[in-house]
Amino acid sequence: MESHMNYQMIVQDQFVIPSILLKSYHQLKLSETEVMVILHIHRFQMEGNKFPTPEDIAQYTSISGQECTKILRTLIQKNILVIEQEENENKLLSECYSLEPLWVTLYKGDQSSQPPVQDTNDQQS
Amino acid sequence: MESHMNYQMIVQDQFVIPSILLKSYHQLKLSETEVMVILHIHRFQMEGNKFPTPEDIAQYTSISGQECTKILRTLIQKNILVIEQEENENKLLSECYSLEPLWVTLYKGDQSSQPPVQDTNDQQS
Amino acid sequence: MESHMNYQMIVQDQFVIPSILLKSYHQLKLSETEVMVILHIHRFQMEGNKFPTPEDIAQYTSISGQECTKILRTLIQKNILVIEQEENENKLLSECYSLEPLWVTLYKGDQSSQPPVQDTNDQQS
Amino acid sequence: MESHMNYQMIVQDQFVIPSILLKSYHQLKLSETEVMVILHIHRFQMEGNKFPTPEDIAQYTSISGQECTKILRTLIQKNILVIEQEENENKLLSECYSLEPLWVTLYKGDQSSQPPVQDTNDQQS
Repeated sequence: MESHMNYQMIVQDQFVIPSILLKSYHQLKLSETEVMVILHIHRFQMEGNKFPTPEDIAQYTSISGQECTKILRTLIQKNILVIEQEENENKLLSECYSLEPLWVTLYKGDQSSQPPVQDTNDQQS
Repeated sequence: MESHMNYQMIVQDQFVIPSILLKSYHQLKLSETEVMVILHIHRFQMEGNKFPTPEDIAQYTSISGQECTKILRTLIQKNILVIEQEENENKLLSECYSLEPLWVTLYKGDQSSQPPVQDTNDQQS
Repeated sequence: MESHMNYQMIVQDQFVIPSILLKSYHQLKLSETEVMVILHIHRFQMEGNKFPTPEDIAQYTSISGQECTKILRTLIQKNILVIEQEENENKLLSECYSLEPLWVTLYKGDQSSQPPVQDTNDQQS
Repeated sequence: MESHMNYQMIVQDQFVIPSILLKSYHQLKLSETEVMVILHIHRFQMEGNKFPTPEDIAQYTSISGQECTKILRTLIQKNILVIEQEENENKLLSECYSLEPLWVTLYKGDQSSQPPVQDTNDQQS
């Protein structure tokens, strides 16, 4: 008997990431653990949690909350991740992560000397 | 000056649909408008609205709320769409759509002899 | 007995589209059929066919090749779709479609007076 | 002047992965590096390379080809990954990877005692 397969659950479980992140993280000198932290932040944000704590993230990984804090700090220092202020509907400010610097780097090939992206004929900035 | 491009917004705007729906809807005798209603239901559900009204859907389409109601009814009759009961955390029942019959039809590919849709439990093949 | 469910096939069948296309096509005055033609072009390109013929597309739709030709012409006139020249590795030129004008319109809200996108606080620059 | 943003490139660069893999790999006792190898295999397959070599994979990671070979062997031993025979159109057999055992485990919660999936109220039948 086949009962419990749920196609809708699988269809709805799918999740989008930029292919270029997988292809280029090593050139950006990111470790596998750092990329997984980035993917978890991206996933949390897609699920509505804009500012997951180190513990939120760490529970899905092999690292501790403390190690996660350290990685988050490193990502900020490397200008991969930034913390932004967001105003909600009640005019209250709250903090959230943004991976914008990472996407800019990846999609504009903006890595000083050697770009990770094939198309980089636009680097004047 | 390049200011306003927001890569993060684009990355987060991407949305997953089953390729097989595009490839097979015509064989299932679904019209373009019916497929768009299905895609809107799928999108609403991914955004957390499990039971969009005909008006919710119609506002994004060229059809009226009334025509949308008719299409929803047709999709239910064709066993593409079903309405299910869901119990929330407060034990309250609420209704939601499920596209499970559609995914079953598409992914189990049982369209030879039988009409486009139907859960055919188990293939003997 | 449950034999034939193939999870890998489902996982690999998923396909990414910009959510904003679903949300905004009606504002752009595109019909459901026109959007489906756009989605088919996008799908063909993701599968490696950069310049599908009207017949390639029409076979998956309820319209004829001739009607599809007409829609493609309309999309080009509306500046949704363009035909570009691409040089392959043997220096031969070939034609391909690009939906770049559509994505620019959708993501930059570049529709003269009235933008289709919710976030437009960056249009002044 | 803003010239060089290429929206189509970004839209076409997006890539689908099962969310449940991110959520559950730690419960499956997979390391971050092992998950990245899995994601690379998945990406290669989506791009048409069904049987990437350890070197193909390693070049995108911080590990060597030799270490990658070891990880691939471990994944096979853990029944996450299998090597299958595929017949091409000329009746020639070639090998390819399949992640089917991983998806089965993740989506069916089929880990004997402790399921990795949240929703498992349907396992009894």
